[in-house]
Amino acid sequence: MNPQELARFFDHTLLKPELTSRQVEALCAEAIQHGFAAVCIPSCYVRSASVLLRGTSVSVATVIGFPFGYGSTKGKRAEAETAMEEGAGELDVVINLSALRSGNWELVESELQQLTQQAHSRKCMIKWIIESGMLTPEELRSCCRIAADAGVDFVKTATGFIGPGATAKQVRTLRSFLPPQIAVKASGGIRTLTQAQELLAAGASRLGTSSAVAILQEAQTAATQP
Amino acid sequence: MNPQELARFFDHTLLKPELTSRQVEALCAEAIQHGFAAVCIPSCYVRSASVLLRGTSVSVATVIGFPFGYGSTKGKRAEAETAMEEGAGELDVVINLSALRSGNWELVESELQQLTQQAHSRKCMIKWIIESGMLTPEELRSCCRIAADAGVDFVKTATGFIGPGATAKQVRTLRSFLPPQIAVKASGGIRTLTQAQELLAAGASRLGTSSAVAILQEAQTAATQP
Repeated sequence: MNPQELARFFDHTLLKPELTSRQVEALCAEAIQHGFAAVCIPSCYVRSASVLLRGTSVSVATVIGFPFGYGSTKGKRAEAETAMEEGAGELDVVINLSALRSGNWELVESELQQLTQQAHSRKCMIKWIIESGMLTPEELRSCCRIAADAGVDFVKTATGFIGPGATAKQVRTLRSFLPPQIAVKASGGIRTLTQAQELLAAGASRLGTSSAVAILQEAQTAATQP
Repeated sequence: MNPQELARFFDHTLLKPELTSRQVEALCAEAIQHGFAAVCIPSCYVRSASVLLRGTSVSVATVIGFPFGYGSTKGKRAEAETAMEEGAGELDVVINLSALRSGNWELVESELQQLTQQAHSRKCMIKWIIESGMLTPEELRSCCRIAADAGVDFVKTATGFIGPGATAKQVRTLRSFLPPQIAVKASGGIRTLTQAQELLAAGASRLGTSSAVAILQEAQTAATQP
């Protein structure tokens, strides 16, 4: 895969709490320059990023209920609605891990169904962040069943702030539990070209990382070596 | 101060992402038993905690935009509205630290004013979490001016998940910048009776901690020693 092809797999991501609007602007410029799939930014920056990315191939992805996921469903729905109104084309929604740990699968499932319908009614993609590194195989399997029933576009491994980051093994497990039409986004701790290649080989279709530019430079260096 | 008097200063708090509904139930029972001021819980648990605490002196406090604070203002407002409808009597709202770091004081101020009016129109208290340990003295002063203009009930030091926890020095600084009608809630890393006493002596009127029961037991032991 050449660097241009590789770039299309990246969500160029900036989600640390003290990020600045200038960093968001730089992120958008880099995403255009390199041809990344999307930028992934906090919902307060959706409007400005949408203006910067208008007419380009780069989508605006934002996070909902990030990073703990335990806000009320109504709060998440409102955050999602506002983000879509302001130009988000992709919503990365955090699972209510607390409800899952409490055995309240009804909330987990109902919330995802509501958000998925809401997103798809506006032709917006939805990715479901499940913190897969914190789940048992049985919980993972249940989440994949719920994701399939709801009809999400992606299951995403991690927020990058709570549980462990993405591993190729986790991606393969998710891939084995999910129907083919649901993609896997690997995220959390992706910093090197080798990691990126392993995650893609394991079946990830999108990579969320703050290190996309560095990884692409690694790929370019590798491509130009004799 | 005897242990009963001390108890009235505590927000009995449970905000880790993997908390369970049973832990919230236990938290509420402990808050009634010890006479804490409030429980402080995620917004998805406001309804159940309100039922458990009905008819007691314990308030339901919940967090809005927690812990990163960079969600859209509309999303925060909706989360706040739902929480108040479901029984919250106190809202602990996280500052948009990213906007502050970007010099976008207009957003910081406008958001707080909107949320404060919204809370007070429902006779709900509002505490503003400012991550004081991450701010310069000048930023702290500006935040205190904004808090005073908005008319919040409390300025709260920290989420406990991002910046450093509460110190007596920080509480004294906040106290010196704030008008007397605005109280200070100290939070983040409060685990011992000595810390609690120092923070109260420095001018805090409320203490947010997951260790309130242990601190109270320390106080009871100290009170019964000859």
